[in-house]
Amino acid sequence: MTFTVKALQKTGPDQPFKVANIERRDPRPDDVVIDIKAAGICHSDIHTIRNEWGEAHFPLTVGHEIAGVVEAVGSDVTDWKVGDRVGVGCMVNSCGECEECRAGQEQNCLNGQVGTYNSTDVDDTITQGGYAEKVVVNERFVCRIPDALDFDVAAPLLCAGITTYAPLNRWGAGETKDGAPKKVAILGLGGLGHMGVQIAVAMGADVTVLSRTLNKEKAALELGAKQMLATTEDDFFSDHRGEFDLILNTISADIPVDKYLSLLKPRGVMTVVGMPPEKQPLSFASVIGGAKVLAGSMIGGIAETQEMLDFCAKHDIAAKIETVSIDKADETYDRVVAGDVYFRAVIDTATFEGAEVTALV
Amino acid sequence: MTFTVKALQKTGPDQPFKVANIERRDPRPDDVVIDIKAAGICHSDIHTIRNEWGEAHFPLTVGHEIAGVVEAVGSDVTDWKVGDRVGVGCMVNSCGECEECRAGQEQNCLNGQVGTYNSTDVDDTITQGGYAEKVVVNERFVCRIPDALDFDVAAPLLCAGITTYAPLNRWGAGETKDGAPKKVAILGLGGLGHMGVQIAVAMGADVTVLSRTLNKEKAALELGAKQMLATTEDDFFSDHRGEFDLILNTISADIPVDKYLSLLKPRGVMTVVGMPPEKQPLSFASVIGGAKVLAGSMIGGIAETQEMLDFCAKHDIAAKIETVSIDKADETYDRVVAGDVYFRAVIDTATFEGAEVTALV
Repeated sequence: MTFTVKALQKTGPDQPFKVANIERRDPRPDDVVIDIKAAGICHSDIHTIRNEWGEAHFPLTVGHEIAGVVEAVGSDVTDWKVGDRVGVGCMVNSCGECEECRAGQEQNCLNGQVGTYNSTDVDDTITQGGYAEKVVVNERFVCRIPDALDFDVAAPLLCAGITTYAPLNRWGAGETKDGAPKKVAILGLGGLGHMGVQIAVAMGADVTVLSRTLNKEKAALELGAKQMLATTEDDFFSDHRGEFDLILNTISADIPVDKYLSLLKPRGVMTVVGMPPEKQPLSFASVIGGAKVLAGSMIGGIAETQEMLDFCAKHDIAAKIETVSIDKADETYDRVVAGDVYFRAVIDTATFEGAEVTALV
Repeated sequence: MTFTVKALQKTGPDQPFKVANIERRDPRPDDVVIDIKAAGICHSDIHTIRNEWGEAHFPLTVGHEIAGVVEAVGSDVTDWKVGDRVGVGCMVNSCGECEECRAGQEQNCLNGQVGTYNSTDVDDTITQGGYAEKVVVNERFVCRIPDALDFDVAAPLLCAGITTYAPLNRWGAGETKDGAPKKVAILGLGGLGHMGVQIAVAMGADVTVLSRTLNKEKAALELGAKQMLATTEDDFFSDHRGEFDLILNTISADIPVDKYLSLLKPRGVMTVVGMPPEKQPLSFASVIGGAKVLAGSMIGGIAETQEMLDFCAKHDIAAKIETVSIDKADETYDRVVAGDVYFRAVIDTATFEGAEVTALV
């Protein structure tokens, strides 16, 4: 059995968003129904629905930065109750039984986690994302949003927050070395980077923002960075050789990997979360000398996502956002791609109210 | 003041080895004079003296897998005494004061460690290696060779042993996961690989050897590996996808990095110690999915080298070698390059006795 909710939908990669009635399943015993209050616009949404990451299943609704309120729960649900403030990120299910799931690493589920949109669900339907009035999610994939965080600034934490928190946490951005804070560089200051800066600063790191230009320097300093450096400066790489303990690369473009590795101290770590379309040439000598580490990271497990939300609330940090109404989704996509949003756009789902359904049935 | 010792020397990259009288400094207060009993032939010796790694300083003596007996000590030396069984590896000095030296990572000395050969020493002379009767070394760069280890099988541990021990140790080859040993793959079964297999097995790992062919399968199993797999088999990479916790790549040739990363479990680590001459193409997606790690490693600190020697003695493991006399050095080099030595050639320095000096003064 299903019920319908209004959602933003595209019928093809070049089609505009339309308001459609989409189906949500009636809650199973272990499901939670969430009344969505805010849905962040993640660059992954754009890549997916524009078919830049392979074939999307149209008609499609995207969105995996979801914040809202529990509206109903399945008969077996005990952890959640109506009225709870909750969030959903990039996953809505996993096997729960494999080595990775048992280790709290559901994102690496050996039997395949179910993505929040454009993914084959356990009932063989294609999952539909959070640009919608409501969503129905397995209870294990719901996180609690602390009262200190408003829905709109919390929504982007469910993807951009955990994507940056997990590698900073794993590689010890908050540890000291010889009694001094670690020197952490955040490469790129967009939706991911601006969360990375705040989280690394809150962990206690000495944070530098690296970008091609200093256009966002004021913002970088306001977010807590000690300094911002332009990587296009003459002698940038030689001047800052061996300076950082940890580099978090949030950009999705080609980078001179060997040069960035040269910015690390011995035993330093460069962790990457952005995927350039092409392979990157890497000299093994760049990691062998100084025993350096190049590590990937992809979101994080549910327990760690909860830990990140609590950490952000405790340290009074959240996404810096602009709120957009549903009729602005298409133009906001163009502005996100142009780098013209500081730093995350979030759809105010209250604007579904009274909106006319424009999609053909 | 100096004294002379007989050594194998080349005057150019294409010249044969000749026996020369080379100078060693009289011991400073913090020096140890070592009567060399055995000197391993490392592939790095060959790369260096054949000018394959940039300009070598000729005339040159190489060798950084040195085992012998303390013959004299400087006036301030208290840790070593005449008659001690000792070894020297790839380094003979470092600043001792930087962050890395203080952390026991002298190989990463921020002021530049002094290599055992072809390196500028603190007195601006060029260091001369271990294919010689004696060597004079700063006391901090001497390790104790346990009585259980003969000189000839201990010598290669000073480079091949620590090169493989350090990354296996750092990345937890000996840890269990869900109560089971970790699955460790050793890529390549030469001088480095055959030590990696033995050390990983002794640490408690479930070890697989990977190589292009199964030519060395019998040896691999004798060294303690559970199995050997041929990477050129059809479907090798798909059949073994996600199988290993840790891969130690000991080969210096190009490899399909993304395919090897696909052999790792989520959060798995590929650590590389061999340097292919060309840059290797890497898709960041290969490390992002599953949050995998690509890590370099280069020998290890002195304390860890001592730990490795003690570990090998305790577990009754050592290099598998053939001993060669000094007059066989050139032909042994060719056999090492051809992969025809199982698994390490070690120069018996007793064969210097009575050898005529053939080098021009």
